[in-house]
This record gives sequence, C-alpha cells and structure tokens, in this order.
Amino acid sequence: MALPKRVKFPLATLLIQAVFIIIYVIFVDYEDAADPTKPDSDYPTPRYYPMFQDVHVMVFVGFGFLYTFLQRYGYSGFGYNILLGAVAVQWTLIVRALFFHDMASGSRVKMSLIEMINGDFNAATVLISFGALIGKTGPLQLLVMVILEVVFANLNQYIGTEHLTASDVGGSMYIHVFGAYFGLAVSRVLYKDSHETSTSLRSGYLSDIFALVGTVFLWCFWPSFNAVSAVDDGRLRAVLNTFASLLACVVVTLAVSSMLSRRGTFDIIHLQNASLAGGVAVGTCADMPIKPWGAMVIGSLAAIISTFGYKYGCDILSSKWKVHDPAGINNLHGMPGILAALAGAAMAGLATSNNFGDSLYVVFPARASNGTIYADDRSANEQAGYQLAALATTLGIAIVGGLLTGLVMRLPVWDDPEDEYLYDDRDYWEVSDQGFPSDLSEVRPLNTGGGLLTNSTNGEM
Amino acid sequence: MALPKRVKFPLATLLIQAVFIIIYVIFVDYEDAADPTKPDSDYPTPRYYPMFQDVHVMVFVGFGFLYTFLQRYGYSGFGYNILLGAVAVQWTLIVRALFFHDMASGSRVKMSLIEMINGDFNAATVLISFGALIGKTGPLQLLVMVILEVVFANLNQYIGTEHLTASDVGGSMYIHVFGAYFGLAVSRVLYKDSHETSTSLRSGYLSDIFALVGTVFLWCFWPSFNAVSAVDDGRLRAVLNTFASLLACVVVTLAVSSMLSRRGTFDIIHLQNASLAGGVAVGTCADMPIKPWGAMVIGSLAAIISTFGYKYGCDILSSKWKVHDPAGINNLHGMPGILAALAGAAMAGLATSNNFGDSLYVVFPARASNGTIYADDRSANEQAGYQLAALATTLGIAIVGGLLTGLVMRLPVWDDPEDEYLYDDRDYWEVSDQGFPSDLSEVRPLNTGGGLLTNSTNGEM
Amino acid sequence: MALPKRVKFPLATLLIQAVFIIIYVIFVDYEDAADPTKPDSDYPTPRYYPMFQDVHVMVFVGFGFLYTFLQRYGYSGFGYNILLGAVAVQWTLIVRALFFHDMASGSRVKMSLIEMINGDFNAATVLISFGALIGKTGPLQLLVMVILEVVFANLNQYIGTEHLTASDVGGSMYIHVFGAYFGLAVSRVLYKDSHETSTSLRSGYLSDIFALVGTVFLWCFWPSFNAVSAVDDGRLRAVLNTFASLLACVVVTLAVSSMLSRRGTFDIIHLQNASLAGGVAVGTCADMPIKPWGAMVIGSLAAIISTFGYKYGCDILSSKWKVHDPAGINNLHGMPGILAALAGAAMAGLATSNNFGDSLYVVFPARASNGTIYADDRSANEQAGYQLAALATTLGIAIVGGLLTGLVMRLPVWDDPEDEYLYDDRDYWEVSDQGFPSDLSEVRPLNTGGGLLTNSTNGEM
Repeated sequence: MALPKRVKFPLATLLIQAVFIIIYVIFVDYEDAADPTKPDSDYPTPRYYPMFQDVHVMVFVGFGFLYTFLQRYGYSGFGYNILLGAVAVQWTLIVRALFFHDMASGSRVKMSLIEMINGDFNAATVLISFGALIGKTGPLQLLVMVILEVVFANLNQYIGTEHLTASDVGGSMYIHVFGAYFGLAVSRVLYKDSHETSTSLRSGYLSDIFALVGTVFLWCFWPSFNAVSAVDDGRLRAVLNTFASLLACVVVTLAVSSMLSRRGTFDIIHLQNASLAGGVAVGTCADMPIKPWGAMVIGSLAAIISTFGYKYGCDILSSKWKVHDPAGINNLHGMPGILAALAGAAMAGLATSNNFGDSLYVVFPARASNGTIYADDRSANEQAGYQLAALATTLGIAIVGGLLTGLVMRLPVWDDPEDEYLYDDRDYWEVSDQGFPSDLSEVRPLNTGGGLLTNSTNGEM
Repeated sequence: MALPKRVKFPLATLLIQAVFIIIYVIFVDYEDAADPTKPDSDYPTPRYYPMFQDVHVMVFVGFGFLYTFLQRYGYSGFGYNILLGAVAVQWTLIVRALFFHDMASGSRVKMSLIEMINGDFNAATVLISFGALIGKTGPLQLLVMVILEVVFANLNQYIGTEHLTASDVGGSMYIHVFGAYFGLAVSRVLYKDSHETSTSLRSGYLSDIFALVGTVFLWCFWPSFNAVSAVDDGRLRAVLNTFASLLACVVVTLAVSSMLSRRGTFDIIHLQNASLAGGVAVGTCADMPIKPWGAMVIGSLAAIISTFGYKYGCDILSSKWKVHDPAGINNLHGMPGILAALAGAAMAGLATSNNFGDSLYVVFPARASNGTIYADDRSANEQAGYQLAALATTLGIAIVGGLLTGLVMRLPVWDDPEDEYLYDDRDYWEVSDQGFPSDLSEVRPLNTGGGLLTNSTNGEM
Repeated sequence: MALPKRVKFPLATLLIQAVFIIIYVIFVDYEDAADPTKPDSDYPTPRYYPMFQDVHVMVFVGFGFLYTFLQRYGYSGFGYNILLGAVAVQWTLIVRALFFHDMASGSRVKMSLIEMINGDFNAATVLISFGALIGKTGPLQLLVMVILEVVFANLNQYIGTEHLTASDVGGSMYIHVFGAYFGLAVSRVLYKDSHETSTSLRSGYLSDIFALVGTVFLWCFWPSFNAVSAVDDGRLRAVLNTFASLLACVVVTLAVSSMLSRRGTFDIIHLQNASLAGGVAVGTCADMPIKPWGAMVIGSLAAIISTFGYKYGCDILSSKWKVHDPAGINNLHGMPGILAALAGAAMAGLATSNNFGDSLYVVFPARASNGTIYADDRSANEQAGYQLAALATTLGIAIVGGLLTGLVMRLPVWDDPEDEYLYDDRDYWEVSDQGFPSDLSEVRPLNTGGGLLTNSTNGEM
C-alpha cells in the first residue's frame, strides 16, 4: 500500500490501543477485592501473585529470550514478543468477556489477578504461534494475527471448558496444541521458498546462549504455569508432577540428542527446546494423581518425541507439506501437547473416586451429579471421550483458524518482509554501522581464503 | 592527589564499610519479629518477602543489566550498580533513622524487611542518578554521590511524607523525579565537551541485548515496586494499575518509535527504556482507584513523552543546558515522574469518600480528622495542593542537592576519568588482551577499505 | 572403550533414568498433602514455594550462567549444569530415603516440596564440585561423580544432622565445604599438566558478562537459600543476616580487588565470585541472633578471604598440590564455608537461653533435655564441639570421598577429553562453522601483524 511504514505501523498500533482504552472505559472495572467502594473480604494477592509473577516471567523473559536465538533477529525476536504479549493480554480480557461473561447479568467486566493470568496464558498461545513465523513476518502481520488468534483461541477454550468440560490445568491443549497448530497453519499459508533458503536463517554461538536465558527461566517456573490454575492438593500435585517431568525430560533430551548425532555430540537446539517438552506433556494431567513416576515417564516420552522432532520433523514438515517451522514449535508445543492430551484422556478413563479421592469432582466437575451447572454424571469413559473431543476441537479450530488468519495476513497491505530482509532486524529496526556479531566472523574465512595470511596463521590455529 | 588508585579506592570503601559496621554495632538491632528474646507474634515474611525479592531483582538485576548497554562499559555499568546499591542500602537504614526515628524514645534502630525495602528504594534513587553519569565518573566520585544523595533524598522523603503528607506509593516523586533531577544536576556540574564527543559513547548489538535482560525484569516486576508499600485493596489496585499502564506503554512506545524514524523503524533504545515509563508514571496514583483505563491512558502518555524525550530531549538538554544524559534518565524517570505527580495531584483533587471508599484515609491520611498525628482534616483541593508542593520540594531539593553534590564530586581528589577512558572499562577494570567485542567489527571496514579482499568478497556479501 | 560416544552416553543416561523411574514406581509416593486419598489438612505450598523457586533459580540459572564464564565452554558449562542438577535432584530423594527414612515403618518414600528443596541443595553440592572440574571432564565422568557424590554428601549430612546434631541452616558445611573439597579432591586425582596450560582456559569480555547473570541471581536470592530451612523468627533472621552479609561483602570485595592490583583496577572474577562469599560465610549461623553488624563482619571477612584466594590461592593450590581449580571453588565455597563453620561453632559456644530466647532449642535441639530423640542436654561448649566435629567430618568425608570418586572417574572407560578439547565445547557439542566469539578477535593481531593493512588503520585507531 502506498502508506509508508512510519505511518502505517503507528496508525495500526495507536488505533488498537485507543480502541482498547475506549472499551475499557465502557466495560471494565476492577475485581471486587480491588474496588474501594466494595466491602473488603479476601485479597487474592498472596494466593496468586507469586505464581502469577512466575508465569509473567515465563511469557516475557522466557519466550522473549528464547526468541533471540537467530543471530540477526534478536531485537525483533525479543521486541515482537513483548509487543504481541502486551496486545494479547489487553485483548484477552475483552474477548474472554464476550465468551465467558454472563452479559445478561448486566455487571461489568472485572479486571482481576486471575484475568491477568488468563491474559498471560493467551499471550503464551500467540507467542507459541509466533515461533513458526519468526523472521518471516512483519509487525503489522503479527498484529493481525494476535487480534484474530485470541478470538479463535477463546472460542476453543470456551467450547472445551464450558461445553466439553475437558480438564486441562496446564493448558497443554488450549495453549500449546492450539498455539502450535495455529502457527503452523499460518506458516503454511505464508510459505515461500526463500523462507528456507535465506542465509540469515541461522543462530550463532552467542545468540544461542542468549536463548538459554529464556530456556532456563521457562524450565524453572513451569511448575507455576501448570499449577496456578489448580486448587488445594491439586496445586501441590501440579508442582510436583511438573517438576518430576522436567527433571526426567532434560536427562533424556541429552541422551537422545547424542544418540541422533553421528559424532555423539549434543545439539544446543535440543537443550534449548526439547528439555522443556516435559512441561508441556504433563500439563493436562498435572493436577491428577499420576504419581511421580508417571510424570517422569511422560517427561521422558516428551523428550524423545521432541528431540526426534527437532532432528527430523522440521525437514519432513517443510519438504512434504511446505510448513516451515523455524523455532520448532511442532516439536516443543505441538506433539508434546498431543501427548499431554492423550495422557489426560487416559487418566480420565482410569479416574475413580478411589484413586482420585475428593479431587475427582474438582478435576472433572462433569462427573458429579450434584446439580451444579457442570454436573452431568459422566462415567470415566465418557470423560475420556470428552477429553479427546477437546483435543480434536482444538486441532480443528487451530488449523482452520490459522489458515483463515494466514489468508488475511498474506494480504499485501500488511507488508511482509522482502527476501533480503528475512530473519534480519534491519527490516524494522535501526542496527548500528557495526552490524551484527555474525558479520564479524565472516572476516575469517575471507582472509584465509585470500591465501595471503595463511602461512602466518597455520601455526597457531 | 598523590595517592595511587590502589590505595585510594580501598581506603575509601573500607572506611565507609567500617563506619557502617561501627554504627550498626552501636545503634542497630533486628526488628522485633526477628528478635529471639521478644515474644513472637506475627512474622512479616510471607506478607513482604516475595514482593521484596521482586524489588530486589529490579534494583540489582534490572538496573544492573540495563546499564550494560554501553559496548565498552559493561563491567563498570554492572559493577558500579551493585557497589552503589550495596552502599546505599546500608547507609539508608542509618539516614532514615536520623530523619524518621524518634530518638527520644531511646529505642534502637530496627533492621526489618520494610527497612530493606526502603533501602532498595533509596538504592534505586541513587542508581537512577547514576544513569546520567555512567561512563563519565570514577567509582570514588560515585561513592561521594551515594553518601550525599541518600541524605538529600531522605530529607526530601521526610518533608514529603511527614510534613506535606503527600501520597506517592510507588515513589514516582521521591524516587524517580528525585533521582533523575539530582543526577542531571550533577551531570551539569561535571559537564565537559568530551563527554559528548567520545567515540566510546556507543552501544553495540550484543550490549543492547544484554540491556534488554534488565528491561524485561524491570517491566515484569514493576507491579511489585509500586505495590509493596500499599496495603489491602490498595495493594491489589497497585498491581493491576501498574500492569495495565505497562501494557499500554509498550504498545505506544513502539508506535511512536516508528513514527519518529524516517524509515519507520524501531529504535532499540526506546524499547529498552520508554516501555518502562508507564511504570514510573502510574506510581503516585497506583493505589488510587483510577480505573484500568485510567492506568492505560497514563501509560500511553508516558510512552509518548518518554519516546519523544529519547528522540529529541537529550540533544536539547545537552546543547541548551550542557546537561548530558547518556542513559536518558530524564526521559525514563524525570518527565514520566512529573506526569505521575500531576496525575496524583489530580486524583487527590477528585478524591471523595464516595469514589475512594475506605481507602480515602489510607491513601491520604491527612484528610482524616480523627486525631492521629497525620490527621488535619484537609479538603480534596488542599490535598492536591500538598501533592504539588511535594513535587516542587522534590525538584528543589534534587536540583540544589545535585548541584552541591556535583561541586564536591568535581574536586580533583576523586579522580574523574581522563578523556581517553570515558565510557571505557579499562579505566578501572582489567580487560583481556582480546579487547572489547566492538573492536572486532572494526576489522571489517578496514579490510574492505584496503581494497585487497574486495573482489573475493563481492560475490558473497 | 570401543563403544562410540553416541552409544555410550545415551546408554548411561537412559539407564540411569530408567533405574530412577523403576525405583520411583516401587518406592515413591506424593507427600500426604498432595495425596488425594489422604484427608487434606494443610498445604505447604504458600509456606515453601516462593523460597523454593528462589533456590531453584539459584541452582539452575545462577550456577548455570556463572559457569558460562569460559569463552569456548558456554554450552557445556550451562548444559552440564542442568544435566547434573536434574540427575542429582532425582537421585537425592532416593539416597536420602536410605539414610533418613525409617524403613522399618514400612511407609513409602514421600516426594514433597521439602524433598525438592533438599534435592536442589544436593544439586548445589554437586555443582560446586563441578566448578573444579569444568572443562576438564566429559559428561560420563560427571555422571559418575553425581551418582557417587550424592551418596557421600548424604552420608555426611546424616552424620552431621542426626548424630552430631550440628546446626547448619544454610548448608555452609554440608553443601559448600563438602562440595568444594570433594571437587578439589577429584580435581587432584584427575590432574594433568595440560589442564593448566591449555590456551582455551580463558574467559572473554562477553562470557564474563554472561557469568554476571548467574552472579546477580545468586546474590539476590541467597537470603532464600539460607532461610528456607529455618522456621518462624529464625527464618526472618536468616533473611536479614544473609542480606546484611552480602551487602558488606560486595563493598569489601571491590576494595580488596583494587588493593591487590598493581594499577588499582578491579578484576571481574572477584565481582563474579567473591561478592557471593558473604552468603556462604553467614550460612551456618544465619538463623542465630548474630546481630546485623555480626553478619556484616562475617561478610567482610569472607570477601577478604575469597578475594585473596582468587588472587593467590589458585596458584598455590595448583603449584604446591597439583589441585587445579578453574572456577575457584576453594575461594567461593571452601574457605568461606570453613569461616561459616567456625562462626557457627563460636555462636554455639556463646548461646544461652538469654541471648537466643526460645530459638535456643530450635537452632540447637540437642541442648534441650525434654526427652525428644535429639535432646541430650548439651552445654554450650559441648554444642560448639559438635559443630567443629561436623566440620571435621565434612572435610574428611569430602576429601576421602572425592579421592575415591576421582579414582573411579579416571578409568578410561568414561572418556576424559583429549588435550586439544580441554575447555572447548567442540568436544561434546555441535558448534557452528562461525566458531567461537573468541576466534573473531584473533583476526586482528594477525592482520596488523601482517603489516599490510597497518598504514591505512593507523589514522583511525
């Protein structure tokens, strides 16, 4: 379109932010506990705030640094992460109100700590999708995505939690599977050969270490991600199960990484990503009594699936289906999320009041028959079926939603990056004359190739 | 002075530390809850500790890494940050006792979690000032500053909280405005042309990414900074308001950054800094019922002011007033802090027991007339006036205190760095023979400039 | 051995993980509070979880990044840290059950938040030892170490806490002294001249800044490390004492660093490490009423000992005793840990119900005479003696255990790295063609040394 970048991007973002503010003026209030005119009863701060902060660090520090892995795309990887996250959180509150809020009651939408956590969860969904598009999309395209994806994601969450009443405490289906296959569907629609052949599509030694900053905060705080929505003893189980799964996962990841390499060496990509797959894979049944060893088995399987995926899956996806996945979200979020959903369904099928105790009706409210709105007296097998239905719904809405969103994002008006600026910050950022750290090393082969200095260096290097 | 560095710096720091220890021996005890000889009633640990740790991470990780943005000054930026912070926290406990402690009561000064938080707040004040002086001052000069600044800062806090009874829960006036204008006043006194012309005054691709480590921890934990001093429902409001303000702020920052660039690109400096201005600007009224949309408006305005400031303000300050501000503290802390003070005064003028509920007398104790020491039955407009008076006092004490402190810091005895060592770690740190990462890239233009290797590289680059 | 790396490492790790899972199947259950079939009484999550997360970040972020200080060993330093940590936590639960669990009772081993904290503590023990071996050992050797060291460490903890009933709330003896001298003993057995002469044994400007990420998280969260095992007012004292000690420590570290340098400059190694010694040195008496000034004195002494150690101690250790200590664990954990033990013994000798109040029998349960299993009516001097006995036992078991473990690790079957791969990630990791950042800078001397480009550069540099 004729409008230059410096008009188009500010226009779009300021418009979005202004609309958000207007909607908040009309519809949004504090939750009662923060409302000074409501009588104070109970402050949720101590119960939620520390775990919320852990989740918040995961979304903005964890994903943010994980996405600095490209050598020439660190500013964008980090910067778009925080931009998309900030838009997603504000937008989620509104979209969730449309789906989940009883408008008939006439009460206003409440901004609460719990809604902030939901905002971060939906931001995570969007940021997972971003991983399939990193380096290949401009910020306007990504803004289109966040606006559309949050709607599709909440439609899916609404169906899954309100109608199917499927349990997914850590959001492995609603967040990870959804985000992964939504992003991959978008990536499919936007596919160009240059996405795979660009010479800028590479990480460097230092950018890989920056990415580890993200990895390790995700790894440390994942128990909070899976536990923050759980209650009472389920919350403690979610912490212990996630912890156990991640411990096994990191060990098996390095084992498989070595096994799949000709020299027996490790690939830093596996450590950065596959070692987190255990957090995804245990998410659906994190608050169920799967026993510590069950969590460890799930974490081990996730590591195997994910590491194999990083080794072989990306090539298959892109050569067979033209689905290019630079951050490997299929391997970190997609397949481990499906494993989570299957494990959750299996546990649902095995759940009795004997092995689940009082937690049975907390984890699976639809199994109760006590007259509450969720209660419909399901059997264990029925609940397992509903769990699988939620997975199917998630996959369906993610893929269809992603394809539709991709079609919108492909419109020329949103300025996709030209081929020479793929995976390159200079597309949308000021980069100093010194250039990227990667450029430095390129001096070396040139010199030695010149033949001139070879003799004097042979001895030392 | 004739004394060499290796005598002067150790002498000064060991003297300071020894004096601290002696004062602590004579005057300082644990707070009662930590005193084993006092009957135990209530432990403040769960109430304050998690938010205290967030603030602590902001001061030492957040500021520390934010100040690694200079390519050749990473050790100093980080190292002086932790040194100044550690001195400031210890010194604050003593200085606060002088101002706030009822000596007549004969009781000893109490080291408590709350005093540690106050220590971190005063450390933040000093570290904000440091941003105006980074690269241009030696550690002895900075030690002089921390000793003097903490006294001036607490004088101001004492007048503001005890006499003017102005509300400022997030310290936007007492910490941010004070720290900014104190630092700028010092910078004015120390001004030399070389401060602006040094070729080492620059960031690099990697140092800018290191700085983002600081940015994102400040951004994530800022709700704790603004909320830790609040109580009950005010604390929850402070969390929600700060969160909302920062979300809007980061979106608007990128919008304005693009708008102000010829090519429409983003400047990483804006993302590193201006995206935090929303945390400052909402600080004074964070615990007031400004509604979520009010917080978002404040965050948006802060982003605009701050980004414009980074684009144009620094040049104006230095060309017109010879105030050189390398980290842009006027834009991140100064102007957004003034915005915070004005917003706080406006809210004070609008506050009634109707819209503030029971919080009215918690946020503005001087509006009560119940006979407590603070209560003087003020009207809303009077309170607004006192809020503005606190801003004026803060500006006055900061500027006068900063000018005086600058005069002391300018004494030759404190060894300001010579021109060739401006913004250069080698002034006070061992740096390996390999030199700085920046030096590496300088190879490139030299080679191609030599003409010799151009042909063989043309094809590839 | 004939087996290639790609078989041997996966075989070993998968075997270990499989054995862990089998043992967990047979023996391990959730703690009662997480067991849905047990009546719920009290959830330990709010009491332990935030401090546990701080400790968790210390072990995996703190140590992980601290060990990226070597320029060519960042992947390994970080990667082996998380591998060893994950194995250690899982193994600790089992080993602790053998030593501490009353098998006769027939009840199963309980996985609990407290056991996870103990897991992290034992992981820290192993990771301290790793500091003496970094760059000189392959992952198989390190796996041998973690399996053996956790057994020796828990034997020592069992003797120290159950039989000697020595108090060590922050684990300065049981974790730091043990880990340090165990690692140094292993280092002694594995000693080769090449360990000291390798040209890859060096840090770079950027790897040193990455290490600071580790330093500052350790520094910020150390109060949680020392406090998490304490109770009631002792927990608050542990926070305040550790905080005070670390504040003094960082000031004195920079003082001594400057003093010991010819030019009066600081060494970044001292800031990275010695500034943490105050956390170690205050560990044993952190929950005792040592007064804030006492903590500051301990932190100051630790800084002096540790900085001197980094300056001179490493050379003495390696030249006199062929004990090579690349990360300087003797200086950060060993000697400050001994200082902690001595301070703890001194406090034990001074402890009366007068100055310790009700804490006396909490901190030193063996001083009570109320018929509990620990109570044996010790005098203050006897308790001091038992504290020293625990130090002696720790040193003895660490050194003997380390020597034995070193002998096992020296077996050729575990593939120690060849000389050319010492301190080099390429031994066990894929590193891109671009090589290490360090290699970049080596271009410079070569070019200028070639004489060819010197003229054209003189003007600019």
